[in-house]
Amino acid sequence: MRTLLATLLMLLSITRPLRSFVPRVSLLSRVTQFGVDFAPTDAPSIRQTRLFSSQGPPKDMTQEEIDRAREERKAAKEAAKLAKAAKKAAQAEASRLEDLATQASNNVLLTDTGSICGDYALISSKTNSVRTYTKAVDLSTDSSAWIRGRLQSIRIKGGSVFLVIRQNAFDTFQCAFFKADMEDETSQKTMLNYFKTLTAESIVDVYGDVVSASVKSCSITDKEMKIKKIHAVTKSTPSLPFELEDAARSPEEVEASQSTDRPFPILGQELRLDNRWMDLRVPANNAIFRVRSGICQLFRESLYSQGFMEIQTPKLIGGESESGSGVFKTDYFGQEACLAQSPQLYKQMAIASDFDRVFEVGPVFRAENSHTRRHLCEFVGLDLEMAINESYLETLTVAHNMFKHIFNGLETRYAKEMAIVREQYHSEPVQFTDEPCIIHWHDGIQMIADAGFDVGDGMQDLTGAQELALGAAVKEKFGTDFFMLDQYPAHIRPFYTMPMEDRNFSNSYDMFIRGQEICSGAQRCHDPDLLREIIHSKGLGDALEEGGGLVGYVKAFENGVMPHAGAGIGCERVVFLALGLDNVRKASMFPRDPNRLSP
Amino acid sequence: MRTLLATLLMLLSITRPLRSFVPRVSLLSRVTQFGVDFAPTDAPSIRQTRLFSSQGPPKDMTQEEIDRAREERKAAKEAAKLAKAAKKAAQAEASRLEDLATQASNNVLLTDTGSICGDYALISSKTNSVRTYTKAVDLSTDSSAWIRGRLQSIRIKGGSVFLVIRQNAFDTFQCAFFKADMEDETSQKTMLNYFKTLTAESIVDVYGDVVSASVKSCSITDKEMKIKKIHAVTKSTPSLPFELEDAARSPEEVEASQSTDRPFPILGQELRLDNRWMDLRVPANNAIFRVRSGICQLFRESLYSQGFMEIQTPKLIGGESESGSGVFKTDYFGQEACLAQSPQLYKQMAIASDFDRVFEVGPVFRAENSHTRRHLCEFVGLDLEMAINESYLETLTVAHNMFKHIFNGLETRYAKEMAIVREQYHSEPVQFTDEPCIIHWHDGIQMIADAGFDVGDGMQDLTGAQELALGAAVKEKFGTDFFMLDQYPAHIRPFYTMPMEDRNFSNSYDMFIRGQEICSGAQRCHDPDLLREIIHSKGLGDALEEGGGLVGYVKAFENGVMPHAGAGIGCERVVFLALGLDNVRKASMFPRDPNRLSP
Repeated sequence: MRTLLATLLMLLSITRPLRSFVPRVSLLSRVTQFGVDFAPTDAPSIRQTRLFSSQGPPKDMTQEEIDRAREERKAAKEAAKLAKAAKKAAQAEASRLEDLATQASNNVLLTDTGSICGDYALISSKTNSVRTYTKAVDLSTDSSAWIRGRLQSIRIKGGSVFLVIRQNAFDTFQCAFFKADMEDETSQKTMLNYFKTLTAESIVDVYGDVVSASVKSCSITDKEMKIKKIHAVTKSTPSLPFELEDAARSPEEVEASQSTDRPFPILGQELRLDNRWMDLRVPANNAIFRVRSGICQLFRESLYSQGFMEIQTPKLIGGESESGSGVFKTDYFGQEACLAQSPQLYKQMAIASDFDRVFEVGPVFRAENSHTRRHLCEFVGLDLEMAINESYLETLTVAHNMFKHIFNGLETRYAKEMAIVREQYHSEPVQFTDEPCIIHWHDGIQMIADAGFDVGDGMQDLTGAQELALGAAVKEKFGTDFFMLDQYPAHIRPFYTMPMEDRNFSNSYDMFIRGQEICSGAQRCHDPDLLREIIHSKGLGDALEEGGGLVGYVKAFENGVMPHAGAGIGCERVVFLALGLDNVRKASMFPRDPNRLSP
Repeated sequence: MRTLLATLLMLLSITRPLRSFVPRVSLLSRVTQFGVDFAPTDAPSIRQTRLFSSQGPPKDMTQEEIDRAREERKAAKEAAKLAKAAKKAAQAEASRLEDLATQASNNVLLTDTGSICGDYALISSKTNSVRTYTKAVDLSTDSSAWIRGRLQSIRIKGGSVFLVIRQNAFDTFQCAFFKADMEDETSQKTMLNYFKTLTAESIVDVYGDVVSASVKSCSITDKEMKIKKIHAVTKSTPSLPFELEDAARSPEEVEASQSTDRPFPILGQELRLDNRWMDLRVPANNAIFRVRSGICQLFRESLYSQGFMEIQTPKLIGGESESGSGVFKTDYFGQEACLAQSPQLYKQMAIASDFDRVFEVGPVFRAENSHTRRHLCEFVGLDLEMAINESYLETLTVAHNMFKHIFNGLETRYAKEMAIVREQYHSEPVQFTDEPCIIHWHDGIQMIADAGFDVGDGMQDLTGAQELALGAAVKEKFGTDFFMLDQYPAHIRPFYTMPMEDRNFSNSYDMFIRGQEICSGAQRCHDPDLLREIIHSKGLGDALEEGGGLVGYVKAFENGVMPHAGAGIGCERVVFLALGLDNVRKASMFPRDPNRLSP
């Protein structure tokens, strides 16, 4: 074992800085240490395909994004090399653990009240409610209790054992065992032997006495548990895809360490995503999805209070819902079906059906071969659509109220989760104005020109850099990270947009957080004749022929319809920009991009 | 006109009972009357394909369902015939209306305070908030106000005009104009001429004085409006796909009328769905989707209060999520992707990622060529998954609490909507027990056998008829419409189900409303070795090979996982069974079945 370890360390020191591979005995047992430091039993799969197509990187990628992609690919390849080398060693270690385990009494049932340690038999509904568990944060000192949680780390030093138990991804709690506290010598030996079989990230049941303590290394600092019984519920393989501790460091901390003699390992995004169930256990990542859940509920809460109802519209549709963006197609019992690129047509038909204010939270699909940090091939749309009396400004007011409710809710109701995210990924709360901050297209173009950009004829869509510049200028002038830009040129907006009186412009708008788009919307063209005219003028007339994808849609406006406006918000965009993250993938639990369809 | 009408009536009397085509002058103006009674300008499209495949009706259709399908096809064909005949007449009528319209002063702006009538110019955000509108239900007598709503009907009789305005799909309100109330003769004439141009289902703005009244034919009975100004916001074509009044009758009323000399028309389901934006304006149909919105929110509310969070998982996945049910496939940048048949694999991976209690509301896709009244090819899944300590009974308790919250919430918070649905589709509230009513498989089989069914070896899945019989027996014995059946034979449950100690049975369950399945669930197999064994034994071993669809899923359980159980609920099933509807399509806004991909 030791020789193999030494060889490996030598091998690794050639290509990687040494620090991350020196066992940190102080925190972890050598068992866990080995597994955690030496990468996965199953090598992370490195795709053998090219990083970019033969035409090179897509045009919409910045140099920074290209560099990052290359860097991540390189890191992933290195990790694979390490993994292969470590695999053999891990297998030997696993077999050693198995030998140890057979010495302990296993197949324990929850009803076996006499058992002090050992793996449980498979938990399969054989018993029910024989035991009450307490959350670590709720434990009272001078009581005895059962807790269940993840074994974050275990440290064995002679007759003393220290465990850190993690619950809810955030709360860590220390449990300790001292041989001297146990009278019976056989029990002492059984317990110590059993502790040696435990691997990090296993789920364990621990029973003991809760005592006052001063613990620095855990989130629960004022108490700990003296272990009397311990059982593994499910055990982790001894090796992990990567160490959670490494995955939980801030980019700044990792970056700063690179120039020291003990640089922290850089975990590539692909390695993390290939093992997403581990990556999501990292407190900040876990908190991101609790925040995301909150954003969806705050979105709905605000809209319910403003008279909206929820709808769910079909994702399998007869034609494209957005022209000009890629579409996935499938065979539908002999017909061709498209995967909806938005609920646009259907939420408008809901308005024609006398649902005056509707919202939808649902997936949208874009078959776009984009490799940027802000595009996904599947994401969740937060959509709303509403009848208006006169103007889309009514909709902007509704949307502004909704976003205020989200931004406020995050900093109050989700303060704990926000703090945990910010520990790893620093960001400031989103600044916003009490009344909507609306910039008209012409003024926006002027601000961008003033920032030194060539805006041409002022009628072309904004580039990412121009949007960022506009965001900076708005922040400086109006003190807000959140604003709206309206009255876009008609030729860069979809066919369903209501034109302005000057037909070159449209009653449309985008919304931005920190200079990046999170939302697109408009008053819709509800007049069937004008709508047909625009559809033809955009070269989409085929969809109006018999059996075409827009026939039913236009027809729905022929029997009277309320004028209406709406907006489509990218849920992942809101999450990643409100949290100031560097990549939209961090805001998608299992992201989909042109290279990724699993897990 | 009159001659054409007479010819048509003669023609129709050959194939259809006469009553439905006799103009009901008492309620509707002849203009609207004509359009409404004589079916659509655009003929409802009758598919020329066979109703069933060459093998005849699918085996899972009951004779009742086959008869209903044939009856609807027949009704649809008749409607198409009528539509064609009526089309020409409707065109003539439209051109007459156009002549009339040109006499009125149109292109009115909301800012034109002097205008008393005329069509508005296209409402396109040219003005904002120049006018306050009041909801009809909120109007105070002895005040003047603007209202906006749908023109449900208009009746002109000499110098008197009676309008019914509909708002929110449910509220109807009478507005009246009397020539004698207006001093200026030109104005009198202009107004009366303008009323003649108005078509049913148009959106109108009405201004006038609110006075006390006793109105029988509207939902608002104690007041009406004396019209001073009226403008069309958007106008309906003069003909409608079908008359809303016909679409709003209860099946019993229609059925009973068939043996009289004035039978009501039978509107086929396909005709309704082809013109779904009209069908959804029917109060009961509209209310169904307000109830559905409520069910989703009640589902989330209960789970939030029980410690759950929301997740959204990918719908484009690398392999099938449910074996044994049809799957839609698409090309994903050169790879083959499946449309998720459930969020099963991903909600379980969320548990492995330390999200202890999760739910998802999202679409699921089934490429099943089923033509029954309870199957859809796309529906919304209400999914939940949770870590358990010992037994899936913990999950049944959570689910029972959740369903109680839904059933109670519908009868209290959505009492108005429920009443409106029940006016057309009669049903009783769902009866349920305070504690979960759980029937074990063996007992369930015995109850079915007692009801006279041959249950064979008692190890086969239940037929629809057997489920209904079980539902009736449970209702009689325990007084509940809602119950759970657990411990199903393992061979009829999916690979991810945790077996019982007797491996022939499983820790699984279904839930039923009125003897029809709404939910399926189980404790999941969280042990990766046992899971692999079951996957192989079900003949799905290929998915475990490198690159297979289940590789990442099983791997996610190797680094420690909480035992867990969950459930997948069909949203449309809950809606249609809680409301006692006859067809699941009534609970889907834009249903998808093998024959329907639009609108």
